[in-house]
Amino acid sequence: MRAARLHEYTDEMGDGLTIEEIDAPQVTASDDVVVEVEGAGWCQTDNHIIEGMWADYVPQELPMTLGHENTGTVVETGEEVTIVSEGDQVICHPVQTCGTCRPCRQGETMYCENAAFNGLTTDGGFAEELLTNERAVIPLPDGVDPTDIAPHADAGITAYHAVKKAVDELNPGDTAVVIGVGGLGHIGLQCLDAMSAAEIVALDIKQSARDLASDLGATHTLDPETQDIPSEIAALTDDRGAVQVLDFVGADETTALAPEITAAGGDHHIIGYGGHIHEPSQALVDGEFSFVGNIVGRYAELQELVALVEDGYVDLHTSRYELDEINSVAEKLEHGEIDGRAVITP
Amino acid sequence: MRAARLHEYTDEMGDGLTIEEIDAPQVTASDDVVVEVEGAGWCQTDNHIIEGMWADYVPQELPMTLGHENTGTVVETGEEVTIVSEGDQVICHPVQTCGTCRPCRQGETMYCENAAFNGLTTDGGFAEELLTNERAVIPLPDGVDPTDIAPHADAGITAYHAVKKAVDELNPGDTAVVIGVGGLGHIGLQCLDAMSAAEIVALDIKQSARDLASDLGATHTLDPETQDIPSEIAALTDDRGAVQVLDFVGADETTALAPEITAAGGDHHIIGYGGHIHEPSQALVDGEFSFVGNIVGRYAELQELVALVEDGYVDLHTSRYELDEINSVAEKLEHGEIDGRAVITP
Amino acid sequence: MRAARLHEYTDEMGDGLTIEEIDAPQVTASDDVVVEVEGAGWCQTDNHIIEGMWADYVPQELPMTLGHENTGTVVETGEEVTIVSEGDQVICHPVQTCGTCRPCRQGETMYCENAAFNGLTTDGGFAEELLTNERAVIPLPDGVDPTDIAPHADAGITAYHAVKKAVDELNPGDTAVVIGVGGLGHIGLQCLDAMSAAEIVALDIKQSARDLASDLGATHTLDPETQDIPSEIAALTDDRGAVQVLDFVGADETTALAPEITAAGGDHHIIGYGGHIHEPSQALVDGEFSFVGNIVGRYAELQELVALVEDGYVDLHTSRYELDEINSVAEKLEHGEIDGRAVITP
Amino acid sequence: MRAARLHEYTDEMGDGLTIEEIDAPQVTASDDVVVEVEGAGWCQTDNHIIEGMWADYVPQELPMTLGHENTGTVVETGEEVTIVSEGDQVICHPVQTCGTCRPCRQGETMYCENAAFNGLTTDGGFAEELLTNERAVIPLPDGVDPTDIAPHADAGITAYHAVKKAVDELNPGDTAVVIGVGGLGHIGLQCLDAMSAAEIVALDIKQSARDLASDLGATHTLDPETQDIPSEIAALTDDRGAVQVLDFVGADETTALAPEITAAGGDHHIIGYGGHIHEPSQALVDGEFSFVGNIVGRYAELQELVALVEDGYVDLHTSRYELDEINSVAEKLEHGEIDGRAVITP
Repeated sequence: MRAARLHEYTDEMGDGLTIEEIDAPQVTASDDVVVEVEGAGWCQTDNHIIEGMWADYVPQELPMTLGHENTGTVVETGEEVTIVSEGDQVICHPVQTCGTCRPCRQGETMYCENAAFNGLTTDGGFAEELLTNERAVIPLPDGVDPTDIAPHADAGITAYHAVKKAVDELNPGDTAVVIGVGGLGHIGLQCLDAMSAAEIVALDIKQSARDLASDLGATHTLDPETQDIPSEIAALTDDRGAVQVLDFVGADETTALAPEITAAGGDHHIIGYGGHIHEPSQALVDGEFSFVGNIVGRYAELQELVALVEDGYVDLHTSRYELDEINSVAEKLEHGEIDGRAVITP
Repeated sequence: MRAARLHEYTDEMGDGLTIEEIDAPQVTASDDVVVEVEGAGWCQTDNHIIEGMWADYVPQELPMTLGHENTGTVVETGEEVTIVSEGDQVICHPVQTCGTCRPCRQGETMYCENAAFNGLTTDGGFAEELLTNERAVIPLPDGVDPTDIAPHADAGITAYHAVKKAVDELNPGDTAVVIGVGGLGHIGLQCLDAMSAAEIVALDIKQSARDLASDLGATHTLDPETQDIPSEIAALTDDRGAVQVLDFVGADETTALAPEITAAGGDHHIIGYGGHIHEPSQALVDGEFSFVGNIVGRYAELQELVALVEDGYVDLHTSRYELDEINSVAEKLEHGEIDGRAVITP
Repeated sequence: MRAARLHEYTDEMGDGLTIEEIDAPQVTASDDVVVEVEGAGWCQTDNHIIEGMWADYVPQELPMTLGHENTGTVVETGEEVTIVSEGDQVICHPVQTCGTCRPCRQGETMYCENAAFNGLTTDGGFAEELLTNERAVIPLPDGVDPTDIAPHADAGITAYHAVKKAVDELNPGDTAVVIGVGGLGHIGLQCLDAMSAAEIVALDIKQSARDLASDLGATHTLDPETQDIPSEIAALTDDRGAVQVLDFVGADETTALAPEITAAGGDHHIIGYGGHIHEPSQALVDGEFSFVGNIVGRYAELQELVALVEDGYVDLHTSRYELDEINSVAEKLEHGEIDGRAVITP
Repeated sequence: MRAARLHEYTDEMGDGLTIEEIDAPQVTASDDVVVEVEGAGWCQTDNHIIEGMWADYVPQELPMTLGHENTGTVVETGEEVTIVSEGDQVICHPVQTCGTCRPCRQGETMYCENAAFNGLTTDGGFAEELLTNERAVIPLPDGVDPTDIAPHADAGITAYHAVKKAVDELNPGDTAVVIGVGGLGHIGLQCLDAMSAAEIVALDIKQSARDLASDLGATHTLDPETQDIPSEIAALTDDRGAVQVLDFVGADETTALAPEITAAGGDHHIIGYGGHIHEPSQALVDGEFSFVGNIVGRYAELQELVALVEDGYVDLHTSRYELDEINSVAEKLEHGEIDGRAVITP
């Protein structure tokens, strides 16, 4: 079968991946599931993987087929698989978990001690077929298009996961700030709107992103390039600050906003990872705010996000590309030229 | 009356404060309480205030009487005060709150929007008498010595406050790490032991502090100067890391431990503020840990800590000094020469 | 001034209260607030008070002016009051709290150990003027009509309080059941819709109430008189049951639904109190569900509800009556003839 | 192999079970585990099962081998089992879960939609060998005796599970009440002592049980037959009531204590199921307390309890019996003649 594979780390997105012919995956374990890929979302993280930015954090063996946001149709199952069968349309959580380590027992499936992560530590979905397992697949409800929903398998649940923590702390009258209304941010904003009655202030340097934010439920939008964010947030919150800040950028400039815009006792969620945190410990003591790390959402959270999509709470703008166009998608994303979310249809 | 006052910021602890005669405080509001001070703890934060380290964070008008860890006997009360009366022995939460702003309504008294903080934003207890209010005083149980308990009014509740958050996340079999077994750390460790069944690993560069930690309930102790902390923690936790880290130091070196010793989903609590956090956003994403800010504990938490002390769960080693010795106490603390916790007895 | 007062308990709603002339309240304490009443909601609880149903639960001294859902204009304030001043329009939380007992410190203002409850333990708002205090009043935002919002002072926050607990446990895809879409129920349903993305199934024996539920956001409605509720809920939830049940009726028949419709680990919230719970302990063990008691919401929750109203999330249908009509309002409510929520305008 | 099996429901404990020869279990699925039983605790629930008290709640097909508190040595494993191997000593959670339904994904393994429960819905451990699966076994730490620890597999985790919920709500200075210091109660009391700093008041009608409670950490003990419990609790709690009540009896008389002894906002945990709840809804509204159902603890909780046992926090008094003595054990328990906890050693 054909697959887009990474052979060595490079900053040249234009020929990061190689389209080549490899063996199709086979079922070997009792819970294996092979999926014919219908949609595989391209994510900023794919660019980061190509650049080698994850090599220090996780074990990677090259060459590897990338692609961690996958949907498709089940074509083969291990003999003990019960929740899906051949022909079912599924969305694939990127992580195949063991189900028997302590984190899996606690429902913390992203902390699985024996996990494989498609397109990050094992082959992913930029290919005709994907090998995954029963603990990673979710049958799609009728009426949900597999290609359209693919990016939710990672971008979606990452945004949802952070928002789910945030809404637990948000009361009516409180303010949440969304920094960056891009791929993840615009999903997060819709989840926030669906699951809380807080005021939402969205920050983005692009007018089009701010307009999108207003359409999707933001109460106010701000432009960090022309407006003084701390004083604007102070004015919008009676000097209390934002109870929850969802930072989908994670750059030095955005994390530096924390002590100035976060309410006492509030959280600055790190979701994007474009830069660093540099902060005196005293700032966290004085304002009693936290920098909260956020990994990809759990399997159960993908179920919840699928329910949100099915119920019409979250819209996702996608543009489709052939497998052959994959390197140009990487390049376009690097230059901010992808409109909505790119999905590869192998 | 005599009081020890700060006239200007200085790095010279030897003559930071001036002992002088000032007017004794008077009751003017219906909830005012005047306390004859019996114990006023000296805190590392007093050194920091003298250095001017808090001038950027809170409004300060000099000269000001320092002292935020106060106990004593009520000598006068406003006409609507009901919870204490003349002659009662009390411990004074350092913050006089309004009781009517939204944070006060929510029980988040440390976020009071109209607060006065003894010895930080208003006159404190290094004086014969202290002006506070009904919302700040807690009657002492019989048998509790007011001088011995004074440091709990700030050091104690700050440690307790962080530990209280930590124990909510600690299950039997989990590991908590205590960094720094000094004034706050040794209180925190005892609270942790009283309120959870987790394993406790204590880190300190001083042998005497590690010995104290073992006596107070630490399961293991480690010396950061001679041991490789990340590999030791990994060995003690089956590679899971510590679910909660209580950093009573907050220096660059200690915050840098976070990604290496904190379990997935865990927290690195910032309580001490000796330095900075410098961390790539990606580290927080990959490990899903948080840097959690911690301010002084609330009034209700001081009630809880007094209950812990009354029930014999927390011992505090104190050494007593006259008001005239106050600058030498500051100097000694600067050089690590105070044994236990210093209490001024004006 | 004129006031509607209860002189003795009776089942005859037609002449439960006596309209009479009494002294207007005076400011005596530093935090007293006197309000000229503009709206005072009539509540099912008023009928219950007249019947003597609360005499066993709280201290009551007759005669007493009823009325616990009050709004109006401040006409006089104690000398230390800061959050409102003469001429301000306010909504009055029914409970005047002390601010110094431990529950008040924790934000649990409904558990205040020194509370006075208007119209239940002290004089209420079915009168030209009401005596309350600074800890009970909330300034109304511009554009909010005081008469329309009055019922939120008790009915509203009681519904909101229970819903706030429920939404913490509700994920997208989960189901919440609302039993009884009357005065409280229709508020609760709107709060649930604003603050969660769960499916909402509303039960009511009246077609008009079910229609209202559909308009206000219910996903499905059921009629307990003609439909088998357990099997309908099972069908709507893939046999999982409802994660949260909000029982605004609290009758024997409705509490008996708990083991059959509540999901494992779920809650059956008791808000209405029309009857009893009779259940074998084994049912709670087998299904691990809880019967959760719900008192009136806290002061901070009334702030949150006012924010919800200001933001347009909650509509309340009210009908206005003169003070002279008050006993006929009681009678009409007894016979189910009040459309929406009755508000007395003294 | 020999097994003790229930053929029909009966109130005659003396010959409730039949010792007979049946086929030993075989591995058929990839995650099956066969354990040679070394200890199988006898539980009050076994008496209830023999009486048919669970027939209405769960599917049961007779004859069935009882026994849900099992430990032993692994003798055979399915081909994909990784966490144990032949020769390992294990404690067996009574429930074999699927790992793929939504509750399993969330860590709520007791709500598994495809569960088998040894000795309740499938064959249990009163036999030479037990069939279970990888998701139910926990390797025992060195030095833990499998026979002694057996009762923790159900009695232990049931007590632990309720206590774990309770300690989340208990602060120093608060009071917890333990009703019934029998098999579960004495475990619960030790867990409470290990995991909180609350005052513990233990109620039991037997002097020996009250003495045991004092030894295990109870601050006070009360005798419901000679003391007025509500007034005693009021006196011990400054009229606040107990924040958490753990009712290991669940009889009509004990559940009736709830409105009188539970603090506002507190919980009355139903763990024992000897009777009913009868309470007006108004009582739950007025006192805002809850009746909280408690099922057996989860797999992850059994891991935590094993850690508590390994760390020396929980002692369990057991007496050992041969398989042939099983019916006399049932009879003795019925008459309150079992000292500590009976363990069958097949």
